[in-house]
Parts: sequence; C-alpha cells; structure tokens
Amino acid sequence: MNTNQVTFREATIQDLDKIVFMLSDDVLGSKRELYKQPLPESYIKAFQSINADPNNELIVACYGEKIIGVQQITFTPYITHQGGWRATIEGVRTASSERGKGVGSLLIQWAIQRAKERGCHIVQLTTDKKRPEALHFYEKLGFTATHEGLKLHI
Amino acid sequence: MNTNQVTFREATIQDLDKIVFMLSDDVLGSKRELYKQPLPESYIKAFQSINADPNNELIVACYGEKIIGVQQITFTPYITHQGGWRATIEGVRTASSERGKGVGSLLIQWAIQRAKERGCHIVQLTTDKKRPEALHFYEKLGFTATHEGLKLHI
Repeated sequence: MNTNQVTFREATIQDLDKIVFMLSDDVLGSKRELYKQPLPESYIKAFQSINADPNNELIVACYGEKIIGVQQITFTPYITHQGGWRATIEGVRTASSERGKGVGSLLIQWAIQRAKERGCHIVQLTTDKKRPEALHFYEKLGFTATHEGLKLHI
Repeated sequence: MNTNQVTFREATIQDLDKIVFMLSDDVLGSKRELYKQPLPESYIKAFQSINADPNNELIVACYGEKIIGVQQITFTPYITHQGGWRATIEGVRTASSERGKGVGSLLIQWAIQRAKERGCHIVQLTTDKKRPEALHFYEKLGFTATHEGLKLHI
C-alpha cells in the first residue's frame, strides 16, 4: 500500500456496514459490538445522530474505493481552559488486513489537523489500559497520559 | 448546610462570572483560567456555544440563591458499543467555601441521573493524575479507572 494515496472523508450510511465490521473485528470490540446483517437498528440511529450533529464527524480512511480505517471526532465547547474547544477522538480502528502499515497514524494526524481547523486547543482521547500497545502508539504521536480515564456503566 | 436543600439547574449567562471564579479558585485551575472583570470574551462565547447545543449542559448547584458548584455534561452519540450514547462530565468544581460537605457527590449523582434520562449507557470523565484525591472520590461513586486519559495541546 502506498500511504500517500490514503484519503479521508466523512462516512455515509453506505459505509456503516464496513465500519461496524471493523469495530467488531478486534479483541475488545468483538465483546461489545454486534455485527450482523441487517445491522442492528441502534447503529443506524447512532449514525443518523452523528450525521445530524455539526459537532460530531465520523471519518473513514479510504484506499481507492476500499474503506481501511475509521474514527469519530467530537468537537466540544468547554468553559474550562478559558472557554476553549476540544476535539475528542473515539472508535479508532484500522481494517485488520491493513494493520501495521501506518494507517492509524494517518488517521490521528488527520484528526489533529481537523481539530486545528476547528479552532480546538486540545485533542484528547482515552485508551483502554488493556491495550498497552495503543498507549505507546499515542505517545509516539505526541499525546501524554496526564489523566486517568474513568467510566461508569449505567 | 442542609444538603437536602441543594438544587440543580442549567446555568444562565448571569451565573458565568461566579462559574469562572469557582473554576479559577483551585490549584490547577488558577494556572489555566483567567478570572477578571469584565470576563474575557472567550468565556462568553463558550457559554453561548454550550447554551445553543442540545448535547451540552452547563449545570450549577445552588443553595438558596447562592451558586455553590458547577459541572458541564456533554451527551455524545457514538458508533461504538452498538451505537450507544455516553455522557461526559467535565469542569466539576465546588465553591471553596463549601468543600468537604458532599456537594461534589451530589453534582455527580445528579449527572448520572441526567445521563439515564438521556438514554446514555456510560458516564465518563477524565481526572488529572495530579489530583489523587479526585480519583478516590470518583471511585467511591462507582467509577473505575479502566482507561488512560491522553491529551495533546495544539
């Protein structure tokens, strides 16, 4: 693969099947996603909510016609940090057939550039402590693990 | 203070001065906020963006007429976790005169209830590793620090 030819665009509903497949095709993802055809309605509703929200972007990485990666970027106005906007990245995944080729780095670099365009001062994300290799990956891209990421399932 | 009499509501622009004062009146907050009168325009713009966004709520805790706490809750539709919505809490602060009385717990419990009303399946937040007492506070409320929280200032 020539990574110079990887392109990025907002996902369409036609991409959703492939996106859910990529998210489920992973050690942690396989436990929490439900990939089947037709796709569960909950994915379609979430896509519609994201698509309708100017502060949420679901981005796919493409190689030619093929979708090889995905990430979601949320832009949030916060009162803290003197009223600064932040970009939060979630659901970053590269197609299993394309891992180890630098697609993940391209996704995050694209998100950082997009965050700058949107006037954000911080790009942030949380990564599961069960993925130590992911922590290292983000640290190489300049992120620092200054925070604990806490979750409560309700 | 009788904590049964603490009430919660969405902040108005008239509350913003007090909110920014509370955020700045803290070891970490004093380094990154800029409390002065009139308030820097950036806070007012952020307030307006939050106020206009149905997926962002700036909540104040009140005791009678007095504002004694603040938090921001962001509701986000995600593709991951089968298209589940999450609530993210940020900028939680109790007025310095009212700390140690349980106001923080009431704020978070209120946010959890609000997240349920909004159909969220996860409540999440990040807390600075420089605040070990905050980590303990959130763990007592049921949160688990399963994730690393990474930031990149751009």
